[in-house]
Amino acid sequence: MLNFVFKNQTEILFGKGQMREITSRLPEAAKVLLLYGGGSIKNNGVYDQAMSALTGVEVVEFGGVEPNPTYETLMQAVATAKQNDVNFILAVGGGSVIDGAKFVAAAFNFDGEPWDILVKGASFSNPLPIGAVLTLPATGSESNGNSVVTKKATSQKRAFSSPTVQPQFAVLDPEYTYSLPPRQVSNGVVDAFVHVIEQYLTYPVNAPLQDRFAEGILQTLISEGPKALSEPNNYDVRANVMWSATMALNGLIGQGVPQDWSTHMIGHELTALYNLDHAQTLAIVLPAVMYVQRDKKAEKIKQLGERVFGITVADEAQQIDQTIKAVQDFFESMAVQTRLADYQLDEKAVQEVIANLEKNGMTALGEHGDIDLAKAKEILMLAL
Amino acid sequence: MLNFVFKNQTEILFGKGQMREITSRLPEAAKVLLLYGGGSIKNNGVYDQAMSALTGVEVVEFGGVEPNPTYETLMQAVATAKQNDVNFILAVGGGSVIDGAKFVAAAFNFDGEPWDILVKGASFSNPLPIGAVLTLPATGSESNGNSVVTKKATSQKRAFSSPTVQPQFAVLDPEYTYSLPPRQVSNGVVDAFVHVIEQYLTYPVNAPLQDRFAEGILQTLISEGPKALSEPNNYDVRANVMWSATMALNGLIGQGVPQDWSTHMIGHELTALYNLDHAQTLAIVLPAVMYVQRDKKAEKIKQLGERVFGITVADEAQQIDQTIKAVQDFFESMAVQTRLADYQLDEKAVQEVIANLEKNGMTALGEHGDIDLAKAKEILMLAL
Repeated sequence: MLNFVFKNQTEILFGKGQMREITSRLPEAAKVLLLYGGGSIKNNGVYDQAMSALTGVEVVEFGGVEPNPTYETLMQAVATAKQNDVNFILAVGGGSVIDGAKFVAAAFNFDGEPWDILVKGASFSNPLPIGAVLTLPATGSESNGNSVVTKKATSQKRAFSSPTVQPQFAVLDPEYTYSLPPRQVSNGVVDAFVHVIEQYLTYPVNAPLQDRFAEGILQTLISEGPKALSEPNNYDVRANVMWSATMALNGLIGQGVPQDWSTHMIGHELTALYNLDHAQTLAIVLPAVMYVQRDKKAEKIKQLGERVFGITVADEAQQIDQTIKAVQDFFESMAVQTRLADYQLDEKAVQEVIANLEKNGMTALGEHGDIDLAKAKEILMLAL
Repeated sequence: MLNFVFKNQTEILFGKGQMREITSRLPEAAKVLLLYGGGSIKNNGVYDQAMSALTGVEVVEFGGVEPNPTYETLMQAVATAKQNDVNFILAVGGGSVIDGAKFVAAAFNFDGEPWDILVKGASFSNPLPIGAVLTLPATGSESNGNSVVTKKATSQKRAFSSPTVQPQFAVLDPEYTYSLPPRQVSNGVVDAFVHVIEQYLTYPVNAPLQDRFAEGILQTLISEGPKALSEPNNYDVRANVMWSATMALNGLIGQGVPQDWSTHMIGHELTALYNLDHAQTLAIVLPAVMYVQRDKKAEKIKQLGERVFGITVADEAQQIDQTIKAVQDFFESMAVQTRLADYQLDEKAVQEVIANLEKNGMTALGEHGDIDLAKAKEILMLAL
């Protein structure tokens, strides 16, 4: 096992009705920026519950944060936050809104061009504190310090991470997910699944507990994910998906083990260029990464097949092939397609993604840093 | 799944050499009470490493905290802490030292008789902050707010719990466990195993992820525990046991599910009366609790048997019998005996334990509150 330092500071408020707990967790004389997305929270009752919980608290609204939140929109939110001198951000939405809140929090007291936080790793101080009300289980953003922001003008999708912008609390009420469109449910399950894989599917370092935890999340997503589509109002199913997605990327399962985020890195370029859903890009890239890296990942792919999918074939190559196929089948069973052609993309897209990876310095991906541009191209060609 | 609120504030510093990280985590102008046990840390190098890390920091020592720490000894530590006006406690040891540190921290600014914190749930304020250096993986005390203290004068073993006395950081260096006597290794593994069982072996509430995490810890303890005895200097084995014991009782796996702490409650009386090792009492009581509660716990006992021990028998009664036997066999394989007679205790002890349970109000134990004195007696008689 590798050394690690780990703490997760987010207080999880899990279950129906937990919204009422948020007021006691706001700062004194709170002036809250209520950040949200396309407005679905106004139709499904979440907005009303938030405003009811915030009775007596000064609230400034900023809606319209888009999926794959853009720098352009978020800078407007920063302006609104400054104009109104807020001292807290309540992010109500999915990973995009919460990621956006982190950027707004960091940019609020930043001198200079905040884009530098994303591209130059510029340091910032005194970020606004954040609380999250999660409506879409997927990214884990509600209890980690990660944020991904896209600059529309240049099609650049970049990330930053800091414990100082991690939400202080997160309301996880499974009922808030009942009204999600099926496509978002599917995307969330696939995103969480791939987060786990990226902290698990590398090479063994004799960390059996981390393996078991990762496998436990995968098993739960496989059993509960399809039910979330077929039984949208089943509370326990929604709760299990929600808790799995949070545990998938709150830092715990990745402690002490190598990680491989190449699927996310390559996928980000597909979203930036063609506006594919984040999870769609992962479903396209991951099986191809597994295939191209099959030798280096052999031990863990076999373990995944056996423990999570119940595949036990004596022949190693077959065991690996069937496990990759099982992952692909799971994505397809969640109605997320797994080939570039399914999204009308061809070799031209491969060239463009490779050019973007090069431009963004993504030339040594994977747990061994050996996914260079040639290998990335091999991966994408396999995914055609 | 049941509602829950969860946060774990302890920063885990895991791995070899992490002691050097502690200095940056002390308060300014730190005056540290170094609390430890019987002195083994002076023989195995841990004391020297701590003192080396604390170079330049004012340190007051208090050694001699015993296994099952006593109120009498800890009140001496409180006096030392007050005389020297310390502002931080560094607990270096196992669960007993860390539990003791929590009581000292709580008693430090307490007006009145600190025993009331344990028997009357008296509230306290401004506890001293605590850091922990773990030398014995077992209780999980390094990252939870629980403390158990025994009053020698009256043979009372009582607990209190508060997030305000939870360690701010915990150093988990597997190398510190190399020199542990085998009996302490065995006890630690059994204690952690039973902690998991007590948050798992109740009745199903459709919380599959919690189940998988619990099973993952049990599987890891079963595979790594015996190796910790046979390969005492195997770093990864020690690391895996250490991380498992912390995860067993840092609060995570018990969120959203019913719990049954009857084994601990009954076991505490055996320790208070006859000074049995804490883990010995658990190894005696748990199999009998499983047997007596077999109908109410049937679903989970069968799941435990199948998933953790690989037992699959069509007949339900046999499946349950074999699973209880497997738990007992595991304890015995860790060289912890499972019958009262193994410790020269007989029916007289049963009567005395029942009398103590009655005196301490422990008359409605278990996840259903249905383990009354009659049932507790049935459990103990089965364990003769």
